[in-house]
Amino acid sequence: MDDCIFCKIIKGEAPCFKVYEDEKVIAFEDINPVTEGHTLIVPKEHAENLYEISPESLAAVHVASQKVIHAIKKALDPVGVVAVQLNGRAVNQIIMHYHLHLMPRGADDPPLGASHCGTKPGDMDALKKTAEKIAAAVGE
Amino acid sequence: MDDCIFCKIIKGEAPCFKVYEDEKVIAFEDINPVTEGHTLIVPKEHAENLYEISPESLAAVHVASQKVIHAIKKALDPVGVVAVQLNGRAVNQIIMHYHLHLMPRGADDPPLGASHCGTKPGDMDALKKTAEKIAAAVGE
Repeated sequence: MDDCIFCKIIKGEAPCFKVYEDEKVIAFEDINPVTEGHTLIVPKEHAENLYEISPESLAAVHVASQKVIHAIKKALDPVGVVAVQLNGRAVNQIIMHYHLHLMPRGADDPPLGASHCGTKPGDMDALKKTAEKIAAAVGE
Repeated sequence: MDDCIFCKIIKGEAPCFKVYEDEKVIAFEDINPVTEGHTLIVPKEHAENLYEISPESLAAVHVASQKVIHAIKKALDPVGVVAVQLNGRAVNQIIMHYHLHLMPRGADDPPLGASHCGTKPGDMDALKKTAEKIAAAVGE
């Protein structure tokens, strides 16, 4: 979709802090991170939500998310990880292209908030470093 | 696992309000629902979390969740659906057997948080009726 920021990232027309990519999926840091290592797993197929995504892309996203959570564990050693996927503007979906959030909770982080409220822009240098750590751990 | 309540449900040794079942997956109502239609999608394989689940069960859970979300839509017509999957006691995972929450937000419901805080026991009759509505819609 021409006006979809995730499609632009997938086509290389917009930048991202990438941590993983395969034939069907790309994963990168959320630029408004709720916690360090807040990563989005995104199908390359444009589909708005869980209603519309193909079963093939859906399976690929979640199988990829397993590689990414292992890499997050190695890179950041969180005490837990919340996976969230929102369907509909009424539940705070902002980018209307299916995506899975992986939000690691660090040992010193407060309990992860009641809602996904990614409105604070992240520090770009910190995001880049975190992405590099996770990306390096994907292949290990 | 002998002491796992979800394994007991899968083996038929504990009751549930079932809405869907296939070879690899079972889905039933959360008995502490955050909203009406709060459904759990559970692999029959015992695996604690996203780190441990087999890719086959993981894909099966999420492909099944797509059938269930369509059924929830038909049965309850929510304005949005939050999918949450928790990894670790530190982020509120209570049953240590991988499960995906689908939490529909009804038109008259307050905003849904992304975190699962299912501590209020649900009304059993209401749960049964909701399960029957969703189960009937799975096959449609």
